[in-house]
Amino acid sequence: MKASIYLGNKSFSTTNSQPRTPEANEVRLDIAYCGICGTDIHIYQGHMDQRVKTPHIIGHELSATIAEVGKEVKGFNAGDVVTIRPLQPGPSVPSDKGYSHISSNLRVIGVDLPGGMQSSLTVPADILHRIPDQLSLRHGAMIEPLAVACHDVRLADVKAGEVVVVIGGGPIGLLIALVARVKGAKVILSEINSYRLQLAANLGFETVNPAEGDLTAMIRNLTGEYLADVVFEVSGARSAVEIMTTVANKRGRIVIVAIHPKPQPVDLLQIFLSELKILGVRVYEAEDFEEAISLAANGQIPLDEMISGVAALEDLQSIFENIESSPQGMKYLIDVAKS
Amino acid sequence: MKASIYLGNKSFSTTNSQPRTPEANEVRLDIAYCGICGTDIHIYQGHMDQRVKTPHIIGHELSATIAEVGKEVKGFNAGDVVTIRPLQPGPSVPSDKGYSHISSNLRVIGVDLPGGMQSSLTVPADILHRIPDQLSLRHGAMIEPLAVACHDVRLADVKAGEVVVVIGGGPIGLLIALVARVKGAKVILSEINSYRLQLAANLGFETVNPAEGDLTAMIRNLTGEYLADVVFEVSGARSAVEIMTTVANKRGRIVIVAIHPKPQPVDLLQIFLSELKILGVRVYEAEDFEEAISLAANGQIPLDEMISGVAALEDLQSIFENIESSPQGMKYLIDVAKS
Repeated sequence: MKASIYLGNKSFSTTNSQPRTPEANEVRLDIAYCGICGTDIHIYQGHMDQRVKTPHIIGHELSATIAEVGKEVKGFNAGDVVTIRPLQPGPSVPSDKGYSHISSNLRVIGVDLPGGMQSSLTVPADILHRIPDQLSLRHGAMIEPLAVACHDVRLADVKAGEVVVVIGGGPIGLLIALVARVKGAKVILSEINSYRLQLAANLGFETVNPAEGDLTAMIRNLTGEYLADVVFEVSGARSAVEIMTTVANKRGRIVIVAIHPKPQPVDLLQIFLSELKILGVRVYEAEDFEEAISLAANGQIPLDEMISGVAALEDLQSIFENIESSPQGMKYLIDVAKS
Repeated sequence: MKASIYLGNKSFSTTNSQPRTPEANEVRLDIAYCGICGTDIHIYQGHMDQRVKTPHIIGHELSATIAEVGKEVKGFNAGDVVTIRPLQPGPSVPSDKGYSHISSNLRVIGVDLPGGMQSSLTVPADILHRIPDQLSLRHGAMIEPLAVACHDVRLADVKAGEVVVVIGGGPIGLLIALVARVKGAKVILSEINSYRLQLAANLGFETVNPAEGDLTAMIRNLTGEYLADVVFEVSGARSAVEIMTTVANKRGRIVIVAIHPKPQPVDLLQIFLSELKILGVRVYEAEDFEEAISLAANGQIPLDEMISGVAALEDLQSIFENIESSPQGMKYLIDVAKS
């Protein structure tokens, strides 16, 4: 029973996990796998020091087996394999309008609350999603980022036959591309990292490298002057914000998936002229988890191809150092059960 | 038969109008009234010199009587009272996706083509909209800006009971407020000009002056912490772009009606966090004219209260000088028929 503790200053230390007996409507989980997310990298790099109080246990992409069930829990039993929707909405305020997944008092397990980089975690039962038998525990830990992609594609209302440009080919960008393709869209992925470009190409996507020319001209060329019905901004780059309004065609939708900590110059004239929509999309709702599980269980998303490595909990420090020094990977999983 | 010619450099000159016999599918109009629009003021101030070729006849908000009907025109006869939807889409391109009102080759009568500040104008019959008997010719000249407001409110999907904040209380802002109120929305109008604030208050709107404090705090206070479901940015001010993302509540819609010639810093983080939508909206489609005519004919929009003055074509120069020196007015009409 171990836990990896984030101490701040890019430093992790492995210690004992402290199992907690579930109260009513809670379950205690034995964590199987826990994925490393871009948010975890932000935490590691200190960008979220104001929000994340150390010592802290990160990790919000997990698969687990239920070890113990508290009173009043219905529909789940010890031994069930699950993932969690790691959101705790907190008290609602009027401006939330009932959207609990983006509520003003939202706390995220693994960010604001202890997460999955430990052997044992006790959570409310209402955030559980069952992992069906067809799905491995490894793939179960990838349902959370896949649910992000399902949410983004759903809110963008991507339709069959539409042209979709994904700017940024990291794990979320690639998953968005994969989900959009399942919806029947023609997807073009824009990325500057050659490793990620190759991986996207291997998965059958048309790719462009905006470092090699004008992205709008490339998309214009690839689409016969049609341009993009939907642009997903997943890169976080200022240059992407500059160009996203010209990559979109008339009444195109531009979906802001990436975090832009500072206000960015946006071409509001182009938004006006072309009647564009910009959509902010954040995390997911329960239905997105259900869709992600369904897509993964049906084999519609090649999750294995996205796994760059699987390591032990004790290796978390070196994995982060590796990610930071050479961004050649895609998704790293921690085999928590093995630790 | 007169015409007011814009010569450039804030200068108008009155000359003779040159009637043109309608070709097939065209009608020749005797112009009754022609309104002065914000776009006309932009032309006068030289902001559109690159687009507007002088000498030019401005004017795109008009009422008219059909003087002569060309061959193959169906459904309209000499003597009919009409307004025009002053858009000429031009050849379509793939990225237009059939949205002719925002097409890449769009030309606007009164901006790119000769407009209504003259006694006689010949136009295609497919841009005519009939003005019913209940509507005066003066009100007929206000259908075009009312159609802008109908388009904006329609694309924003304003629903009964929603809180709408309109930033900017000029003619378009006020018409948006009026149309949103017809839809059952609770409307708050934000404006810094005391004349326009008073006019909005006289029309029964709650008003706020963002020069007197923090707009978000004022809206928070007026709505019991609910904030705005829909924000219309009609001011063109950079400060409005800065604050529009905090005035909106979760999943709120922000509608860009104003022209912002240069990219403006937009808080994309707030758009992400609150899952906001930014919608560009431009001009109108045929159905917006039909709705505008219906609302005006049913007396649901107090158009008389918006008319600041009616002048002759020869007075165009002095009207523009007056508008520029003291922005105390709302909508000025030119009585072209009288000229």
